[in-house]
Amino acid sequence: MTRAKVQVREVGLRDGLQMVPDIVPTEVKLEWLRAEAALGVGAFDITSFVSKSRMPQFADAEEMVQACLAMPGVQASVLTLNARGAERALEAGARRLVYVLSASAAHSQGNAGRDTEAALAEFGQVVRMAREAGPSRPVHLEAGIATAFGCTLEGPVDPERVSRLAARLAELGADEIMLADTVGYAQPRQVQALFRSVRRQIGALPLGGHFHDTRGLALANVVAALDEGVTKFDAALGGLGGCPFAPGASGNVAMEDLVYLLESMGYATRVDLAALLELRQGLAAWLPGVDLHGAIARAGLPKGFVRQAA
Amino acid sequence: MTRAKVQVREVGLRDGLQMVPDIVPTEVKLEWLRAEAALGVGAFDITSFVSKSRMPQFADAEEMVQACLAMPGVQASVLTLNARGAERALEAGARRLVYVLSASAAHSQGNAGRDTEAALAEFGQVVRMAREAGPSRPVHLEAGIATAFGCTLEGPVDPERVSRLAARLAELGADEIMLADTVGYAQPRQVQALFRSVRRQIGALPLGGHFHDTRGLALANVVAALDEGVTKFDAALGGLGGCPFAPGASGNVAMEDLVYLLESMGYATRVDLAALLELRQGLAAWLPGVDLHGAIARAGLPKGFVRQAA
Repeated sequence: MTRAKVQVREVGLRDGLQMVPDIVPTEVKLEWLRAEAALGVGAFDITSFVSKSRMPQFADAEEMVQACLAMPGVQASVLTLNARGAERALEAGARRLVYVLSASAAHSQGNAGRDTEAALAEFGQVVRMAREAGPSRPVHLEAGIATAFGCTLEGPVDPERVSRLAARLAELGADEIMLADTVGYAQPRQVQALFRSVRRQIGALPLGGHFHDTRGLALANVVAALDEGVTKFDAALGGLGGCPFAPGASGNVAMEDLVYLLESMGYATRVDLAALLELRQGLAAWLPGVDLHGAIARAGLPKGFVRQAA
Repeated sequence: MTRAKVQVREVGLRDGLQMVPDIVPTEVKLEWLRAEAALGVGAFDITSFVSKSRMPQFADAEEMVQACLAMPGVQASVLTLNARGAERALEAGARRLVYVLSASAAHSQGNAGRDTEAALAEFGQVVRMAREAGPSRPVHLEAGIATAFGCTLEGPVDPERVSRLAARLAELGADEIMLADTVGYAQPRQVQALFRSVRRQIGALPLGGHFHDTRGLALANVVAALDEGVTKFDAALGGLGGCPFAPGASGNVAMEDLVYLLESMGYATRVDLAALLELRQGLAAWLPGVDLHGAIARAGLPKGFVRQAA
């Protein structure tokens, strides 16, 4: 019997490192990426094309793109918040862009200095830029909806607003939609309802989930999304990420916990979980003083836990 | 609209304290119990009737029962592993017994010094003792199946075995069945399947779930059980419990995380969550040096999170 496949994407190099104050050398980032790719992770968010002065952690964005273009079997995506970032990313040769905009107006202002409507208009511009990059070099354009399940500034976010936003992103030409629980406010019933509603808006377009474990519900939310047919999830090794407003709180769901959940439920991730747990120890050495999170690394795999063949 | 009700039971005084090396004074245990009852928790596992020399933490079992008999609105249950413990509990005046036996033969030997079949025979004896306590003083007899989802000694546990065990416990006269993931091996698909199968065996008998968060899946497992109609769950304030074989790993799902999950999903627990989070700080003071766990205490409640009226 073939198991259902789920794609996990490592976002620690982007969503994780943006919380890390010390600049991580490009060579260390690439060593991490290569090691995780070698044990079965096939997709990575590798960097952010944002202001180098505001985010010096990503001053090597161009080098990261160049290095990843040469890696067979690695889907490397880069984050952009605006047309300027997309332009830089395309110039650097990026083939997969994640354009993130916020469902919450307050978060949109804070994160990107404009309201959601302006961000949507700019996405139209980014679509044109990506298409102009030519049929000879197709660019995959994913649209990520941040604060889709709530916002630390505004509180609840209207799910109707998120669904309409997804519909417009699809109309404008997104190749894929991702719903992000940027601050860990989502709960399973809400996840189920929103993914169902967005699916109705976007037809067969790929749809992914990005959950933070800030309030301990990330894995329950993943299960709710799986039940709605979602098969693409973001995570960060060691739960790297955190939240500047909640000391000690976890951020991105830990990759190793996500893989454990999926494999234990019978899904095929292609990831070698035992090797991933070893790599996590390497990550702790690369990032001294940075808090890692996650349950399975502390508790260990269950006795008799066998990774089945995909 | 009336929200669906879910009963949460605090097991920290029993399952939590059995991991705490320092003896907690009876008065502190009762202060904790009274404070948590006052903020809406209606059910408690208050002690274990096990050997006082092996478990000095529970040497005050009789006093705990006596003190709780005088508390209106508190469902106080006591754990027993055998007829001797049940006899002591009944003599002390206990009205709710939880008789625990293990689905795993190896765990049964280790925890209670006999195999599952012998534990089942002894349950028959306990049922007769409870019934003889007389119609004037009815005793509620819950049967808990430990290691129902796997065992650190044996690995996987056959779900058929668990279902048959539940059926026999029901036939012998259990008033309620509880499935326990004693070591945190359960995953949501397994939880769904086992609760469904056990429900078919036991008809309308009350059925509860006891999940440990050792591998981060407790809340996802609670959701899976909720989806199967389960409305009774155990938890421990501050995730008290842990595991002797996994330093730093969490044990019982944290009561505050469970209540947050349930209330955020729209279930009515009757528990004042903000007050519960304050009480957790009190618990940390009562149990200095003991690791507490749980996500919501670190991250705080979401902005705009409102506990709806039950």
